[in-house]
Amino acid sequence: MQEVLLNNVKINQGFFKDRQKTNLVSLKNVHKRFLETGRFEALKQTWKQGDKNKPHIFFDSDVAKWIESAAYVLIDQKDEELEQLCDSYIDEIQAHQEKDGYFNSYFSHIAPDKKWKLRMEHELYCAGHLIEAAVAYYQATGKDKFLNVMKKNADHIEKVFKIEKNAAFVTCGHEEIELALYKLYKVTKELRYLSLAKFFIDERGQRQEEVYPSVDPHYDQSFLPVRKQHTAEGHSVRALYLYSGMADIGKETNDKELIDACKKIYENITTKRMYITGGVGSSHYGEAFTYDYDLPNLSAYTETCAAIALIMFCDRMNEIEANAKYADTIERALYNNVLSGVSLDGKSFFYENPLEADVEKYDFNQTYKVKQHMPIIRRQEVFDCSCCPPNLTRTIASIGSLIYKYDKQDIFINQYISSSADIEGNLIEMKSDMPWKGKINIKVSPKIPIKIFLRIPYWATEYIVTVNQKEFKGNIQNGYMKISVSEESIIIIDFDMPIRIVFAHNKVKANSGRAAVTRGPIVYAAEGIDNPNIDLKDVKLDFSGKSEIFENQFTKYNIIMPVLYREQIELYSYQVPEYQKTSLKLIPYFMWANRERSDMQVWFLY
Amino acid sequence: MQEVLLNNVKINQGFFKDRQKTNLVSLKNVHKRFLETGRFEALKQTWKQGDKNKPHIFFDSDVAKWIESAAYVLIDQKDEELEQLCDSYIDEIQAHQEKDGYFNSYFSHIAPDKKWKLRMEHELYCAGHLIEAAVAYYQATGKDKFLNVMKKNADHIEKVFKIEKNAAFVTCGHEEIELALYKLYKVTKELRYLSLAKFFIDERGQRQEEVYPSVDPHYDQSFLPVRKQHTAEGHSVRALYLYSGMADIGKETNDKELIDACKKIYENITTKRMYITGGVGSSHYGEAFTYDYDLPNLSAYTETCAAIALIMFCDRMNEIEANAKYADTIERALYNNVLSGVSLDGKSFFYENPLEADVEKYDFNQTYKVKQHMPIIRRQEVFDCSCCPPNLTRTIASIGSLIYKYDKQDIFINQYISSSADIEGNLIEMKSDMPWKGKINIKVSPKIPIKIFLRIPYWATEYIVTVNQKEFKGNIQNGYMKISVSEESIIIIDFDMPIRIVFAHNKVKANSGRAAVTRGPIVYAAEGIDNPNIDLKDVKLDFSGKSEIFENQFTKYNIIMPVLYREQIELYSYQVPEYQKTSLKLIPYFMWANRERSDMQVWFLY
Repeated sequence: MQEVLLNNVKINQGFFKDRQKTNLVSLKNVHKRFLETGRFEALKQTWKQGDKNKPHIFFDSDVAKWIESAAYVLIDQKDEELEQLCDSYIDEIQAHQEKDGYFNSYFSHIAPDKKWKLRMEHELYCAGHLIEAAVAYYQATGKDKFLNVMKKNADHIEKVFKIEKNAAFVTCGHEEIELALYKLYKVTKELRYLSLAKFFIDERGQRQEEVYPSVDPHYDQSFLPVRKQHTAEGHSVRALYLYSGMADIGKETNDKELIDACKKIYENITTKRMYITGGVGSSHYGEAFTYDYDLPNLSAYTETCAAIALIMFCDRMNEIEANAKYADTIERALYNNVLSGVSLDGKSFFYENPLEADVEKYDFNQTYKVKQHMPIIRRQEVFDCSCCPPNLTRTIASIGSLIYKYDKQDIFINQYISSSADIEGNLIEMKSDMPWKGKINIKVSPKIPIKIFLRIPYWATEYIVTVNQKEFKGNIQNGYMKISVSEESIIIIDFDMPIRIVFAHNKVKANSGRAAVTRGPIVYAAEGIDNPNIDLKDVKLDFSGKSEIFENQFTKYNIIMPVLYREQIELYSYQVPEYQKTSLKLIPYFMWANRERSDMQVWFLY
Repeated sequence: MQEVLLNNVKINQGFFKDRQKTNLVSLKNVHKRFLETGRFEALKQTWKQGDKNKPHIFFDSDVAKWIESAAYVLIDQKDEELEQLCDSYIDEIQAHQEKDGYFNSYFSHIAPDKKWKLRMEHELYCAGHLIEAAVAYYQATGKDKFLNVMKKNADHIEKVFKIEKNAAFVTCGHEEIELALYKLYKVTKELRYLSLAKFFIDERGQRQEEVYPSVDPHYDQSFLPVRKQHTAEGHSVRALYLYSGMADIGKETNDKELIDACKKIYENITTKRMYITGGVGSSHYGEAFTYDYDLPNLSAYTETCAAIALIMFCDRMNEIEANAKYADTIERALYNNVLSGVSLDGKSFFYENPLEADVEKYDFNQTYKVKQHMPIIRRQEVFDCSCCPPNLTRTIASIGSLIYKYDKQDIFINQYISSSADIEGNLIEMKSDMPWKGKINIKVSPKIPIKIFLRIPYWATEYIVTVNQKEFKGNIQNGYMKISVSEESIIIIDFDMPIRIVFAHNKVKANSGRAAVTRGPIVYAAEGIDNPNIDLKDVKLDFSGKSEIFENQFTKYNIIMPVLYREQIELYSYQVPEYQKTSLKLIPYFMWANRERSDMQVWFLY
């Protein structure tokens, strides 16, 4: 299957149109905070000892992801001011590219003698993000200045790493360059870049390379050659950027061993190491995958970037194998862990997205400086390591790229997001009430007879499909329902979206005796602020009662669940608890922490 | 109420006689490990740079607790060899006491310029333990050499701290001196020592004093004057040694404000901050009390020394107020957290006594050097900071002191431990099957008409009391049943000891939806080794089924509980779990970790 370029998809209304409007606020706010913290200033390479905002090895990647985000916005709508701003940064980048093609604001300026010497210091990672930005900006504007700068940079990298082998290391401590070089190859058609991407993938884990002192080579997936890796290990963002690159190269070169490793890793993640929110990387230490079924809620690391990277990986896997499960996982991560990463006003961000918040414990630990990591419970506008905010802005701005895939005359509809698309001359107009209601209206105007493949989501129970007002009963294969369309047609899908209770595998210790409340792709959470008189942790879902869905202006579609609670006076009692009936108010998980600070919980006793 | 001196109580059979036999193994083994690690050698003050086993600021306290343990053993039975060994160490102590009375092996030898300058470095703490040892050794042997050394030392302390105020601090960073000076006062009748103990108690929290950098003054209970402290705060062993001293001084000086603070702290601990095992101090960080109802199981710190200190505090409170609740708490801590601190063979020890063990997580964290503290899951023979082993040996060796209290002609029986006692000429002979069976036979031979107060434990349901074979129905006041005895009588109590399920307060998040299995004072635990095919964390107690008690040679009285378990294939499923019936084998909590490593759990879903 192939991707549909963002240039050919337009989000024109509905949930994600609103999100993209808010994303413009995010883009501005991230820009402001990055200005304040010297991230753009660093491009000028004028910082000197004693100045504030010392450039950091990550800064180029922050700038790059911001420009990439801006590029996707520019694809959607002309904006002279934004484009000029991008051009000015691109001019700085060009002006400071070294003669041999080297570009890195930090190393050129602060540590020129350390160039290509420090494996863990993100040089190739920054280069990768700049390449992604250059490709996006070229696609958005047609301007090739940035693209040419990054081609020259990639040529330099090829010379140093692959031809002359002058670098002090072979593979980067933080993967990203691999998938970026693949993107550069796709837009330039230069096989050298594909080959360089494959080189970095092939070389990983072939030898012992420097990791942080005392950090295990699992950390950056260099513990084994990648084709022998069958479980998701180590730093979750590093891992999923690598797996994305592996999928790219696997698909392009039809490398069965590589594809097989990707499939096994995907299965390991989604059947054993993923939160119900699509979050991955359960441990703060190493920001890492840990072991099967280890999914603690309160300390869940579940970095926003990791869920975004999971989406990137799944999107590529979906191109390899037309199976709706990959789009299911994208939907899960998108509507829960990813959207949780940004506040409803677009201004502030979560790095970690835990599935439980305990204000009393958090405050105690803060007050007494307890040396135990706990995720923050309020979003922040910027972080020292501020990778997540611009990763979010680029993801929301490019959400259109996740909706469709095609393979000759087969068109796959993966995400039910209101949009219009031109896929090789076949026009699609989709209106969707997702994620709040299951009604989707798709107008298809084919240029030639085509087949539409509708994803039937994992959460769907009852649904009705009509084609030109006639009910359509199609077989479902690999999660898709196939509909042949040879003339302008209206396809309407109406998914029933009842409240559904989810149970976790018996080995997930954190969720023993607990269940989560969902509706469609949305995972629900309860916040203390809505439930002041009950202990979230102790309350029991009462399946015998009737739940209700109600609209609320701020938190949209909420749920009221019947629950049982108890009170006990003694610390320890022989008295069997007597439960009282009451109700629990839940809001979509991704909307948590947008009001006053309070406890939050996803998994409830039943 | 008054204590009954250990010299007047003899443990002659039953559960604790066996424990005291094992305790002789412990005493020998601790001695061996302390020899190997230079703890006794340090007394000679011959260590020099380059030698192994550099003396440590704690070493004197380790030696002191070992001698104190030996003293209690010597009270029980003559042992020439052991007494000579003690004498030799006492000679070393005397030989190295400085002219002015100062004694501390570490400071005299390693850092003489730092004497009385470093508040957090345990000088007064070590002095306190040496005083306790000297008092015990005097009571055991009648020899006063050690006692005189420590009196001279106490005189020196009085001069430096109270009279001349030359020290760089006022109160010690680790309490212990207070209760020790009270013991010294009790044996010498010198009011100066009582007054000095009171001085240290009165001065605590009156000013800001040095704590470890960045450690809050809650850490060593110096955040407020002690009479204003109404909750248990900070380092749990420090706290309970202080509260013990407060209770001593409160009782002796009839200081109502001090007694009131002690009562409030006792209530705070036992109604909000104590594990079902009698463990206290839930946090590794600061080895501390945290906040109400914060009682996590897997990371429970619950230091052996803290449970011992809780017993010390309760024993003193019981003398202030003849209420059986204090003895209940002693029994809870003793049969669970304290006994868990030593292996069944007596050779190895736990510092922490968690209520859950997760081998997979423990091994993962060890393998990948995850920087997250987890209690060890196998006992060790010695620790760098090896306070717990000799604290255990002195507690088991002096267990007789916890059984009886008296107040004129009232004799209180607090612990049903087989023993014979001479209480002011009134003889008691008690045979008890506790903790395995509830049958207790007490022969009382009074010198004058007396009243016997039998503790009716919190766990007692049905029971029958007979006096000289006639059923006796007495009122229960403050947890005690009063029986008047004017001639030789046989009192028999037969407590029914059914399996009883315990529920925790709704605010104890760790135990939400969970219950613990108990029988009499014994808390039960399940180990993976006995339950290989079920997930301990996910299993549900089935109250509708029938439990069984069975004897096992190694782990004694075990329990088989009917439980429900489930299996699920998917990580997340909409299918309501179907539970299967099976059974769970439980052993007494204190016997855990005596076989192969496996998971352990106390609180089960129900």
